[in-house]
Amino acid sequence: MDQIDRQMPFSHNGSTLWPCMLDPFAPLSHIDGYLKDFLESRRLAPLLREALVYSLLAPGKRLRPVLCWHACEALGTGVGVTGQDSLPAGGAVELIHCFSLIHDDLPALDNDDLRRGRPTLHKHAGEAMAILAADLAHALAFVLISERCPAELVPQMVTELAAATEAMIVGQVYDTLGGVEGTSLEVQAEKIHANKTGALIRASCRLGILSACGAGHIQEERQKLELERITRYADALGLIFQITDDLLDVEQTSEHVGKKTGKDAAAGKVTYPVVFGVEGSRREIAKHVDLAIQAIAPWGESGKALEVICQQMSRRTK
Amino acid sequence: MDQIDRQMPFSHNGSTLWPCMLDPFAPLSHIDGYLKDFLESRRLAPLLREALVYSLLAPGKRLRPVLCWHACEALGTGVGVTGQDSLPAGGAVELIHCFSLIHDDLPALDNDDLRRGRPTLHKHAGEAMAILAADLAHALAFVLISERCPAELVPQMVTELAAATEAMIVGQVYDTLGGVEGTSLEVQAEKIHANKTGALIRASCRLGILSACGAGHIQEERQKLELERITRYADALGLIFQITDDLLDVEQTSEHVGKKTGKDAAAGKVTYPVVFGVEGSRREIAKHVDLAIQAIAPWGESGKALEVICQQMSRRTK
Repeated sequence: MDQIDRQMPFSHNGSTLWPCMLDPFAPLSHIDGYLKDFLESRRLAPLLREALVYSLLAPGKRLRPVLCWHACEALGTGVGVTGQDSLPAGGAVELIHCFSLIHDDLPALDNDDLRRGRPTLHKHAGEAMAILAADLAHALAFVLISERCPAELVPQMVTELAAATEAMIVGQVYDTLGGVEGTSLEVQAEKIHANKTGALIRASCRLGILSACGAGHIQEERQKLELERITRYADALGLIFQITDDLLDVEQTSEHVGKKTGKDAAAGKVTYPVVFGVEGSRREIAKHVDLAIQAIAPWGESGKALEVICQQMSRRTK
Repeated sequence: MDQIDRQMPFSHNGSTLWPCMLDPFAPLSHIDGYLKDFLESRRLAPLLREALVYSLLAPGKRLRPVLCWHACEALGTGVGVTGQDSLPAGGAVELIHCFSLIHDDLPALDNDDLRRGRPTLHKHAGEAMAILAADLAHALAFVLISERCPAELVPQMVTELAAATEAMIVGQVYDTLGGVEGTSLEVQAEKIHANKTGALIRASCRLGILSACGAGHIQEERQKLELERITRYADALGLIFQITDDLLDVEQTSEHVGKKTGKDAAAGKVTYPVVFGVEGSRREIAKHVDLAIQAIAPWGESGKALEVICQQMSRRTK
């Protein structure tokens, strides 16, 4: 039994549920609580702390730590590992995500005034503070992993997170400053995305698997296989996320989405709707939903939350 | 024999030398070569690579990796460890230092046009590129450690480097945006410095010691003792470095130093000359030279290069 009937009830943490009843974002309160406690444990100047709290704990989906949580749970069932074990790694990815949003919003880059329905950090606290608070979030991501993850996992986790951060910045440079050379628009769109958004989503999922592997819970051979599975899921999800984001920028108002829309076209950016058209973009989404679900099908019920996330992401309107 | 007569010749790497003949900055070419090779090993957009090379490989002393090198050699003699073993950690510290200089120079922060006698990166390549290239240098520091240091050392090294980066940013916030509360000017000057400059110099030295400890070369008990020694040395050196820097800002021309001087006073910053006066600052330097040399006296000849650095730093004019 590798396939689950998506219309049938299933058991999850001992209860019988219908797919529509499962809220994969339920761990959000654990994640926010963990990040809040972590920030409180650091000795920071009051203004700096306020700036970081403003950005890091702004209302949001926490998609990346939620993915990390469920990837960890998918593997951890039966070996005493829970989503809680994913919190340091998931929190670290959220810190990296937070730093990149703050810098991307700066006047010299995307020059955005609005983020998650509120003034961006440089509008709220000034540009100097925004630059430095983001730098701090970046450093704290590595503090969090090195201080709170099992030592035997730290080298692999730091490699994973640092390389994803590198790729994200490379993607941001392509996106903002151009310079993807000698390739078709399709390849450019994919190259920009795979780095800019994809790398961090992939790292979130892979770090979730690694979080379940402390203390030799999972043998090396199986770890490798499961990392391959989650990577296929994550790469498909990353595309779904990016294409949907591009469509929202075309089709929705700023008020609804909570950040400025219509700006990609204004900036002449290489996006999916530009390259594939709106209908073609929707077909790309449907294709990748199938690929993502296939990749984690062997996990059966343990992968249900990841499947629901994938469905929700493909249908989101903000 | 714990004390060395600083006027007498000594043996170093098998040769007999007088202190004035020892150039502690000789490893500079190894360090620059290593950083250049590392950057070439990464897949980067050409403009991004150019920006990073411009800043990271700008002519400079490479004080931090040089300290890391000599701390590693001081301990490594006799156990087959050489300064070469310090290159990943030393390179990582230089990447962090480089990122912080680029961001500090930005218009929203110190608004400097000149760095090491050349246009600052945002003047050379634009503000967007400067922000992103510095972010990349930050991430690459952790890539370098996690990919190239012995796995058993990575957790401690990442903790060391990430916490120092955190402290450096906290210091930069105090320095640029103020907010050190309820303390005397003396304590403020020390608090700003200990974070802003001191933390990374301390990390350079401590990472040098750790670099000598791979493969169980040095027992845990001794490692702890040597880390205490190098930390006392590094804290004294950090103060010498900062006070000298503050004095240069007061006493030298921009042309001589290669960056804008007189700007601390113009910005109303809390510096050593402001708090202790010029003569008082010189007395502080002399006091800390003695403390630094005492701390590493037990290493005898192996610590000679570190001692010479300390003497040179106290007398530098740029």
